[in-house]
Amino acid sequence: MSASTTTHAARATTAAVITLDNGTVTRRTDTLAGEEPLQIRVAGPDHDAIDIAVTMRTPGGEEELAAGFLVTEGLCRPDDIDRWAIGDPSADARPDDTVTVHLRRPIDPASIRPRQTVATASCGICGTALVEDIVRRCGPLPDGPRIDPAVLQALPASLRAAQEAFDSTGGLHAAGLFDPDGRLRMAREDVGRHNALDKLLGAAALAGDLPLHGTMLLVSGRVSFELVQKAAVAGVPVVLAVGAPTDLAVDTATRLGVTLVGFLRDGRCNVYSRPDRLGIKSP
Amino acid sequence: MSASTTTHAARATTAAVITLDNGTVTRRTDTLAGEEPLQIRVAGPDHDAIDIAVTMRTPGGEEELAAGFLVTEGLCRPDDIDRWAIGDPSADARPDDTVTVHLRRPIDPASIRPRQTVATASCGICGTALVEDIVRRCGPLPDGPRIDPAVLQALPASLRAAQEAFDSTGGLHAAGLFDPDGRLRMAREDVGRHNALDKLLGAAALAGDLPLHGTMLLVSGRVSFELVQKAAVAGVPVVLAVGAPTDLAVDTATRLGVTLVGFLRDGRCNVYSRPDRLGIKSP
Repeated sequence: MSASTTTHAARATTAAVITLDNGTVTRRTDTLAGEEPLQIRVAGPDHDAIDIAVTMRTPGGEEELAAGFLVTEGLCRPDDIDRWAIGDPSADARPDDTVTVHLRRPIDPASIRPRQTVATASCGICGTALVEDIVRRCGPLPDGPRIDPAVLQALPASLRAAQEAFDSTGGLHAAGLFDPDGRLRMAREDVGRHNALDKLLGAAALAGDLPLHGTMLLVSGRVSFELVQKAAVAGVPVVLAVGAPTDLAVDTATRLGVTLVGFLRDGRCNVYSRPDRLGIKSP
Repeated sequence: MSASTTTHAARATTAAVITLDNGTVTRRTDTLAGEEPLQIRVAGPDHDAIDIAVTMRTPGGEEELAAGFLVTEGLCRPDDIDRWAIGDPSADARPDDTVTVHLRRPIDPASIRPRQTVATASCGICGTALVEDIVRRCGPLPDGPRIDPAVLQALPASLRAAQEAFDSTGGLHAAGLFDPDGRLRMAREDVGRHNALDKLLGAAALAGDLPLHGTMLLVSGRVSFELVQKAAVAGVPVVLAVGAPTDLAVDTATRLGVTLVGFLRDGRCNVYSRPDRLGIKSP
């Protein structure tokens, strides 16, 4: 097996972040998990490369990710893999955003069904193109609402209380929509975090409540590019998460003018973009 | 807007579970988060229903999920939605596994790009068909290895220690491969839990180590159908998770003969299938 080489260490990037700890504002640098699309392609002995999948992943270990995906989805066997190549010089993409796996024998045409885990309709392959595409599709967000940071800490408990009414499993993600004063409007749950958010924003859409300009969104876990995108398209200007954001989530929030808050727990939180809605000056 | 009705409460199911608490075995009934595929279709005034997406979700709120997906992905606007219908009498599916959204105006053909978040190649639409498909593709798993339950509790700390070497972000999922005696073979990380597992199993595949019959897999979060499927295809007979499994993950593990352990933390764990590999008799 021959290969161009990548490291298996997951990429992380740094960002300026504002920490709010019981009213005290601290500015520092934080490390963010990398998130970037990867296009997986397959080339056979008798055919050119075919697009198989696009997945949002952390850069690093591209050949392992592609091999694991192809093998565990039944598209090839380990010993079918001859070599792989990272990058596509012809594309407007980061060098490591495409991986082409060259197989020793043709894959079964019936098994080829394009998989698009990045749902965005007209996305380019690199993260920057993804964000540009969303910027074009989103209407402008309002400057408000103005949020008192003191209301934020009570929101996770409020969402959990709503969740406990349904979830006895410990296995569901939750998304909640709040008024600027911290009142919970509604909550939805799902095994998939993007599904919990789709249900919540879908309920608001069906009720005729979009755009949701005067609201805050809280998600129970981590926050990825896709969640920020969905919130912004629905007009939500403030996105809060109990867990960590990815670097692409922060980039997207910054470009779209969304206030993004992470690690909202234990009396603290981190503000990654548009702190002015919380009454904090931008750096 | 007219509609057939669904409840927005997320479905949960019950299952027999064995709890291991510092060596004490208790049998009880537990509640599991529901996981089932949903096919989202769109019909316009001038065209029949088109398949848009398949997503693994928790049953309940199908019309909200479809509306939220279509609107936040830019496929339609809220006031384009005329009505929706749950179910597809012509298909071999559960009644609530398909939702068709009828739009007042045609959607832009350029925006239609099928999205397949269930990556399984030849899956049917209902969860049972998904599992049957995996059963056909997996080779038989061995009866072993025999695991001493006492080694399990140390594994999450061992995975975290490996993860700390890379992850300063708090935002990455981890997957680790262990020997039956609890020694960590290797670990991989990613923002996506399925990507962390693809990287891990891909590294093993590229090293020529499949099938991974004499190993255990540990994932840092919850365990869905897809993770059990990928582990089984790679030959891993024991899947451990720090978080909760879904009902379809338990069904799949039971059908495939995988030992599935969840909530591995605080000196306890739950065993959902094939407890014999842990020296515990099946109910």
